[in-house]
Amino acid sequence: MNSLPNNLKQIALFLERLPGIGQKTANRLAFYFLRLPESDLKEFAKNITFLKTKTKFCNVCMNLTEEETCSICLDKKRDSGVITVVEEVLDILSFETGNIYSGVYHVLHGRIDPLNHIGPEDIYIEKLLTRVKTSKVIEIILATNPDMEGEATAMFIKNQLSGLNKLNGKGFKITRLAYGLPIGGSLEYADYMTLRKAIEGRNSY
Amino acid sequence: MNSLPNNLKQIALFLERLPGIGQKTANRLAFYFLRLPESDLKEFAKNITFLKTKTKFCNVCMNLTEEETCSICLDKKRDSGVITVVEEVLDILSFETGNIYSGVYHVLHGRIDPLNHIGPEDIYIEKLLTRVKTSKVIEIILATNPDMEGEATAMFIKNQLSGLNKLNGKGFKITRLAYGLPIGGSLEYADYMTLRKAIEGRNSY
Repeated sequence: MNSLPNNLKQIALFLERLPGIGQKTANRLAFYFLRLPESDLKEFAKNITFLKTKTKFCNVCMNLTEEETCSICLDKKRDSGVITVVEEVLDILSFETGNIYSGVYHVLHGRIDPLNHIGPEDIYIEKLLTRVKTSKVIEIILATNPDMEGEATAMFIKNQLSGLNKLNGKGFKITRLAYGLPIGGSLEYADYMTLRKAIEGRNSY
Repeated sequence: MNSLPNNLKQIALFLERLPGIGQKTANRLAFYFLRLPESDLKEFAKNITFLKTKTKFCNVCMNLTEEETCSICLDKKRDSGVITVVEEVLDILSFETGNIYSGVYHVLHGRIDPLNHIGPEDIYIEKLLTRVKTSKVIEIILATNPDMEGEATAMFIKNQLSGLNKLNGKGFKITRLAYGLPIGGSLEYADYMTLRKAIEGRNSY
């Protein structure tokens, strides 16, 4: 490392801190930067510089945005009565790449995780409840991850929402994403929990 | 992607162009940037901005440096009479991490590769010959990669250097890195070419 120019070394050290990038990869990437056009590097540097000041949370759904409200919430063609609740902003990307969903989102920015001292008050559940209280909602789709913390979070939110439904007489549906075999997967490699869910959720055919 | 703030999207698109980084990883990394301290991001951006203007080739060995001559060539404790010839600057790092070598280097910045129209004149072979002619050299270690192009390059340089040795009466040694089983490897997974080299190069024990 000491044989590298300081500038390049600093870049490699920075990249090494990123998740999934080890020392070798960091070095390789830093060297690749050297081959890119200077204008691209400057543009990238500018974006990095202003990343945190420019990026904020959407005031409706907590998605990331450069404006007050994100492009999804502003989109008139989307059904604002259907809200999918996700843990992270990246989860929205998974939905959006497929063009499979035309409702809106609510980002929790985390999940209830007692082992890591993250309780319901540490994620944006209250914000969701306020939103549901003050707007017309038809359905809430709980799309937290299919693991222990995700399930606990979904369960907690479901109870809160059911309470709202009873109290305020808001007749919205609460649903959860289906469990089962992933498309393109193989039964041979399916774990038994997934298989059990696939059996439990079997459909007439 | 369209649901992302422009700034973040540009960063993800840039990262996606890097080798070994796909769309998902690029998004994940871009989001990770958001969690880093702003001062670190600014420092990184500054390094990126000045990367190409600040980094140049060492005037002795073609290593990368911010000065005229790199820190390795300037190091008085190193044996400047022993020159290891490598294809890329990254190869130097492999030698330097282990603290196993105290000579100096010469970086070719490529290898002879006729299929990709890269001839001897496209890499810094001439620069090496000039260096050998004008300085005191004891040994040249050819450390190009152990593959077809690396071998061809080593062979070509060896012939050129042998010519110099004869013409100018410079009695330096020309050596090549040893072939054999990699440490920590397993015979079961060794390819037969490596095994053949390991047999040919066997040592008394």
